[in-house]
Amino acid sequence: MSGVRGPDQVERLVAMLARLPGMGRRSARRAALKLLQDPGGLMLPLSEQLRETAESVRPCRVCGNIDTQDPCRICTDPSREQDILCVTEGVADLWALERAHVHRGLYHILGGVLSALSGVGPEDLRIGALVERIAAGEIQEVILALPATVDGATTAHYLTDRLRAAAPHLAVTRLAQGVPMGGALDVMDDGTLAAALKARRPA
Amino acid sequence: MSGVRGPDQVERLVAMLARLPGMGRRSARRAALKLLQDPGGLMLPLSEQLRETAESVRPCRVCGNIDTQDPCRICTDPSREQDILCVTEGVADLWALERAHVHRGLYHILGGVLSALSGVGPEDLRIGALVERIAAGEIQEVILALPATVDGATTAHYLTDRLRAAAPHLAVTRLAQGVPMGGALDVMDDGTLAAALKARRPA
Repeated sequence: MSGVRGPDQVERLVAMLARLPGMGRRSARRAALKLLQDPGGLMLPLSEQLRETAESVRPCRVCGNIDTQDPCRICTDPSREQDILCVTEGVADLWALERAHVHRGLYHILGGVLSALSGVGPEDLRIGALVERIAAGEIQEVILALPATVDGATTAHYLTDRLRAAAPHLAVTRLAQGVPMGGALDVMDDGTLAAALKARRPA
Repeated sequence: MSGVRGPDQVERLVAMLARLPGMGRRSARRAALKLLQDPGGLMLPLSEQLRETAESVRPCRVCGNIDTQDPCRICTDPSREQDILCVTEGVADLWALERAHVHRGLYHILGGVLSALSGVGPEDLRIGALVERIAAGEIQEVILALPATVDGATTAHYLTDRLRAAAPHLAVTRLAQGVPMGGALDVMDDGTLAAALKARRPA
């Protein structure tokens, strides 16, 4: 029944759009219709942009960031602090830190965190490459900007041991934990409150 | 600062994805990252599907549906009832009715509803084409499947007058209003409850 769910071409497009995060079948249909209403202004340009981006963007061999150049523009930017390295789980976290303009050093993307449940071991992450970068000697501090989860904490512990063994004088730091800006205390979970209280500072 | 928000190519992709309904800047970034993680399996096929669909799908000159053929597969399907025509606001509503398998006749898409606020007048909708189809004489009943809103009701009134003037013996019907299937009474709005009570039927 070709007409039952819209023409086949449209159905195939809806099925692909539905694979994007945050998109369900329903929103994918709405997106497909919006695209079909403006083939020249949105649909073909999006097709072209997807192709262009897929063909031009690749992972940076140094830090694992994605960029149109390799090594990426952060790794090759001489104005960035060359002795401080921020380790993140993925590219999205790097983007978030860059948007916040809070880190002017370099990055290293792990490509995940250790997870016994998901079977992610050290060899699945870019840890060997990290240790090699540290061994080169220029890095003075590694900031572990990993998620505040059990797996993130496990990964931070593991990395701290590995990095201290490889470079005894290296400073290894972690992000502070506490109440987020604007956060109301009565909606915070117990773990956050405990961490915030433990790490209290003089007013 | 090229690195601040990710490489330009990625930023342009994010900006385009963010124009899709239901996508904000944040979900567009997540979608872009997911696409970038699988260029061959998702990103390039989506690019190709968008291009193919944009180039092959067009509006049906008869009913306004979109399909890879014109007239569309519904209009040219001889097994469908040729004397009953369902009028909808847009293609999404046609798809919803087809998915529900509740209408075996033909369709006519208005391309919107009358709206004084948005400045949509009769000449902006496919009303002339509808009257012409009715004037051809084969249609016995027109079902106005328009949204249960003020603008939808205004449009239904206007169409009823136009159609009755053009074809005095034509049956013009509207969808029933009432409590939706599975709907709890205590969360229904007053308008729905009033309509459901007014249209009550013998048990």
